[in-house]
Amino acid sequence: MKAVRLHGYHQQPVVEEVPEPTVRGPFDVVVKIGGAGVCRTDLHIIEGQWEAAMAPTLPYTVGHENAGWVHEVGSAVTNVAVGDTVILHPTPTCGLCHACRAGQDMHCADSSFPGLSHDGGMAEYLLTSARACVKLDPATRPQDVAALADAGITAYHAVRKALPLLYPGTTAVVIGAGGLGHIGIQCLAALSATRIVVVDRNPDALKLAEQIGAHDTVAADGGHVDAVLELTGGGADVVFDFVAEQGAEQDGFAMTRRTGSYYVIGYGGTLTVPTLDVIATERNIIGNIVGTYNELAELMALAQSGRVTLHTRTYPLDAAAEAFQDLDAGRVRGRAILVP
Amino acid sequence: MKAVRLHGYHQQPVVEEVPEPTVRGPFDVVVKIGGAGVCRTDLHIIEGQWEAAMAPTLPYTVGHENAGWVHEVGSAVTNVAVGDTVILHPTPTCGLCHACRAGQDMHCADSSFPGLSHDGGMAEYLLTSARACVKLDPATRPQDVAALADAGITAYHAVRKALPLLYPGTTAVVIGAGGLGHIGIQCLAALSATRIVVVDRNPDALKLAEQIGAHDTVAADGGHVDAVLELTGGGADVVFDFVAEQGAEQDGFAMTRRTGSYYVIGYGGTLTVPTLDVIATERNIIGNIVGTYNELAELMALAQSGRVTLHTRTYPLDAAAEAFQDLDAGRVRGRAILVP
Amino acid sequence: MKAVRLHGYHQQPVVEEVPEPTVRGPFDVVVKIGGAGVCRTDLHIIEGQWEAAMAPTLPYTVGHENAGWVHEVGSAVTNVAVGDTVILHPTPTCGLCHACRAGQDMHCADSSFPGLSHDGGMAEYLLTSARACVKLDPATRPQDVAALADAGITAYHAVRKALPLLYPGTTAVVIGAGGLGHIGIQCLAALSATRIVVVDRNPDALKLAEQIGAHDTVAADGGHVDAVLELTGGGADVVFDFVAEQGAEQDGFAMTRRTGSYYVIGYGGTLTVPTLDVIATERNIIGNIVGTYNELAELMALAQSGRVTLHTRTYPLDAAAEAFQDLDAGRVRGRAILVP
Amino acid sequence: MKAVRLHGYHQQPVVEEVPEPTVRGPFDVVVKIGGAGVCRTDLHIIEGQWEAAMAPTLPYTVGHENAGWVHEVGSAVTNVAVGDTVILHPTPTCGLCHACRAGQDMHCADSSFPGLSHDGGMAEYLLTSARACVKLDPATRPQDVAALADAGITAYHAVRKALPLLYPGTTAVVIGAGGLGHIGIQCLAALSATRIVVVDRNPDALKLAEQIGAHDTVAADGGHVDAVLELTGGGADVVFDFVAEQGAEQDGFAMTRRTGSYYVIGYGGTLTVPTLDVIATERNIIGNIVGTYNELAELMALAQSGRVTLHTRTYPLDAAAEAFQDLDAGRVRGRAILVP
Repeated sequence: MKAVRLHGYHQQPVVEEVPEPTVRGPFDVVVKIGGAGVCRTDLHIIEGQWEAAMAPTLPYTVGHENAGWVHEVGSAVTNVAVGDTVILHPTPTCGLCHACRAGQDMHCADSSFPGLSHDGGMAEYLLTSARACVKLDPATRPQDVAALADAGITAYHAVRKALPLLYPGTTAVVIGAGGLGHIGIQCLAALSATRIVVVDRNPDALKLAEQIGAHDTVAADGGHVDAVLELTGGGADVVFDFVAEQGAEQDGFAMTRRTGSYYVIGYGGTLTVPTLDVIATERNIIGNIVGTYNELAELMALAQSGRVTLHTRTYPLDAAAEAFQDLDAGRVRGRAILVP
Repeated sequence: MKAVRLHGYHQQPVVEEVPEPTVRGPFDVVVKIGGAGVCRTDLHIIEGQWEAAMAPTLPYTVGHENAGWVHEVGSAVTNVAVGDTVILHPTPTCGLCHACRAGQDMHCADSSFPGLSHDGGMAEYLLTSARACVKLDPATRPQDVAALADAGITAYHAVRKALPLLYPGTTAVVIGAGGLGHIGIQCLAALSATRIVVVDRNPDALKLAEQIGAHDTVAADGGHVDAVLELTGGGADVVFDFVAEQGAEQDGFAMTRRTGSYYVIGYGGTLTVPTLDVIATERNIIGNIVGTYNELAELMALAQSGRVTLHTRTYPLDAAAEAFQDLDAGRVRGRAILVP
Repeated sequence: MKAVRLHGYHQQPVVEEVPEPTVRGPFDVVVKIGGAGVCRTDLHIIEGQWEAAMAPTLPYTVGHENAGWVHEVGSAVTNVAVGDTVILHPTPTCGLCHACRAGQDMHCADSSFPGLSHDGGMAEYLLTSARACVKLDPATRPQDVAALADAGITAYHAVRKALPLLYPGTTAVVIGAGGLGHIGIQCLAALSATRIVVVDRNPDALKLAEQIGAHDTVAADGGHVDAVLELTGGGADVVFDFVAEQGAEQDGFAMTRRTGSYYVIGYGGTLTVPTLDVIATERNIIGNIVGTYNELAELMALAQSGRVTLHTRTYPLDAAAEAFQDLDAGRVRGRAILVP
Repeated sequence: MKAVRLHGYHQQPVVEEVPEPTVRGPFDVVVKIGGAGVCRTDLHIIEGQWEAAMAPTLPYTVGHENAGWVHEVGSAVTNVAVGDTVILHPTPTCGLCHACRAGQDMHCADSSFPGLSHDGGMAEYLLTSARACVKLDPATRPQDVAALADAGITAYHAVRKALPLLYPGTTAVVIGAGGLGHIGIQCLAALSATRIVVVDRNPDALKLAEQIGAHDTVAADGGHVDAVLELTGGGADVVFDFVAEQGAEQDGFAMTRRTGSYYVIGYGGTLTVPTLDVIATERNIIGNIVGTYNELAELMALAQSGRVTLHTRTYPLDAAAEAFQDLDAGRVRGRAILVP
């Protein structure tokens, strides 16, 4: 089959022929890929930023945001059958550790991360586990939903955690209305009546934000912290920072009100905060990573009822290099999806 | 009456005669002081650290940790009567703002802070509000409980917030077994079955910690972060940092495990954290300040059932200067209490 | 002034002249009434059902669902001023008991209930307390929102409590799409993405339900329990029962799924449940009454942003008798509002 | 091997030779039994009460409260190895349904119940699943902890759920200080500072209750509801009813205060409650069943630190009939345990 393979850091992955994967263990599942999202993390992988943490053996197939159809199942698989349409939780899990037994899939003590630690989904077929498969309405086109497998679940997880703080009369700020942020905005609009203020550098991103649920938008032009404090009468109840680098992390914390919470979702920057500022106003800094299996299922329910929609641009698998270049150059609106 | 008055920053308060306060408004209460705690914040007040934030008109009477007996009540006071034994919430509140209506007294939009913003309790009498009074068993000696009014409520509030995270099998680290910390340890032991690990520089503080509920103690000698990571198999579920300065803030965050939470209670330092470290392990940094009126009442229930006890050293009001010096020199075990 | 006064049980209230109320205590507020809702509870008052519990001294003025403008304030009132537009929480509270200090206004140990325990708001003026006043946008017409003061807050409180159970993919059943229910449906639609199934006997009520957010409707024609079990694949996650009499209470519990919750809001019936049915499936029966002051403020935020709207029919105060008769005869769609 | 087998309803099980079980599927585990608890449910099984719900094929081996050592493991088992000491969650689960993915093992859509639905643990060996095994300190004697597998987890689950309601100053009532109740009392004492009031008919049970944490005891002699209302000044915050039959269910609800919660754990009776009583005071009726896998692990942490201890009486497997008779006749203090 064809696959997008990374042969060395700081060089572009290439599309080449590799053997199709087959089931080996009782809970293995092979999925025929219908859509594989192209994510900024893929660019970071090429740059070698994940080499130390994930240590994949090169060459390997990238792609960690996948949906498709079940192609082959192991002997003990009961939750999906050949032919089922599925979206894949990004981290197949052990099911037995404390985190798994608490439903906290993303904290599994023995998980793997296809596309980062070993062969991923930018290929015709992907080997995964029964525990990663969320079964979908057969009418769903995998390429239309693949971006929910990673960008979507991450945005949804952060918003869902914050909902108890976002009762009517509160304000939520979203920093970054890109791939994750534009899903976060829709989740906030679907699941709360909080006032949504979106901050982004890009005027097009702010226009999109207004169309999908933002009540106010603020251009990240240097005066945006003051603008948010003014708009909110002293700060937001929750700030969702989908950027969290290049100063956004300081701005984000500064935009919270007394007792407010700063939800970190992006990464790359370094937050510097006097402990006095944390205690005097009893504010919180909350980490967020991926989401649970059930949260992915919930997000699919939102998507299938039309409350969360994705803007995607598809590329054939052979055009992977072009998709990577478009993403890097800021030419992708919404999400780029490879379709084998 | 006699009062401990600050006439200028960077000089010792003096004991002098001032007029007794009297009720002016319908909800005013004058309390005859039975005990007034001496707090490190008092030293910071003298150093001028609170001048900007609180802007008191000098000279004024210090003392923000008070208990005593009701001496006079305003025309509309119904919750206490002359002669009642009371401990005082540190911040009299408006009762009408959003925070007050949610029971979040310490976030009242219109509160005052006797002892910081105007005349406090190191005196024979204190003017406060009906809303600050927690009625006690008449047999209680105010000097025995005064330290719960500020040190106690602050430690209790942080522990209570963290309890859902501290189920059996978890570990809590307490940094700093001093005035607040030694109350926090007792609250943890009374309200959870978590394993309690205490970190302090002072061997005597660690000895005390063992007597009041610590399961393990670790000397803060430079190797303490590694020691805690070793003891806990990778970090604590919750770290309560009663110091949060001079590097404790970095150590405290570093002692948390995946999905762990770092509770900031002390202050003075500056926390520097890459956003990647916050998201990759989904950790939290949680601010804590004082506590609610009901939390003070709950803490008094704990104290009156003997589950939280204070080590105190009393001084007559005239010896206030000596008490301040002893605290500054590290000669006070537990809490110094002025008794008029 | 004119007021609607009850002179004896089992007889219609009469409109008559009484003296205007004036402020007596420091926290008193006199409100010029702009709208007073007519509630089924008013019919029950006439029938004597509240005589034992509330023991009002006859004659007295009924009306417990009020909005208007501040007319006079006591000496210590700071949160509202003469001329402010306000909606009134139904129970003025003491502000000092444990429940008040926890923000649980409706459980105040020393509250009163104007319109039930003493003079209410079907009059030109009402005496209430500063603590009951929620200040509104001056552009709000009191007659348009009065029904939120009691029907609204009650429905909102129940829905808000249940929100953590109503994540995407769940189902909520609403029994009774009348005065309270039609607000509950709108709150569910505004604050969650749960599937909303509405059960009512009245085809017009079901039509209205569809227009304001119901995804499915079921006629309460005897087969409705089975219909709901069928529609939901075994029962709802939460059933909100705004009727809870005449068998609805048994039907409501029967419509819950494993681990589901039956929220009781209406009253009048008697629930009979084997304890085996409660434990085998770990289901809950949850009481609900009125709501907090802050919840009323939140609901006003929802209303002012247009997410909750009321269908009302206004009557002049002199036509109170006609309004009562129309309600009793089922001729009121939405809520009848008396406008002095 | 020897096993205690039920050949027909309304007749005593007999000890007889049967083939040892062996692993069949990749996740199967065979456990050599070290202790099997004798539960009142076993008596109900003999009476045929579970025939309809569980429909076991007779004859079969009873025993649903088991601990021992791993004897054989399936090909895909990774969490335990031969020789490990284990206690068994009562319901092996699928790991894939919504409930399992949320950590709610006891609500698994595809679980089994050894000892009720098919062969259980009153035998030398038991066939179970890797997902049911909680690994213990090798020094643990299975016969000492077996009763925690069912009685323990059920009591712990109910107490843990109620903890947020049981802050200092509250009161919890425990109805029934028998097998489950005496564990519940210890859990309450270990995990909260609530005042514990125990109600039982049996003076010996009340004596035991006092030794293990009860602050007050009340004889269930007819005046107990009034006695509890008097002791608590109007009712308990939470009532844990481990009986819930023969009138205890009505008494239990009647013992709750305004906003209180009645936790049903026992079963057999029928609760009859006017909906007015549920709403007027906003009280709750909460179902409870077994507990999660992680809760069993937490309870083992409590037990291994000595905070929960069991009084047990052991019988050899051959004496199963005697153990059943002793339980039925009320001659067992604590829990009877069969030791093969």
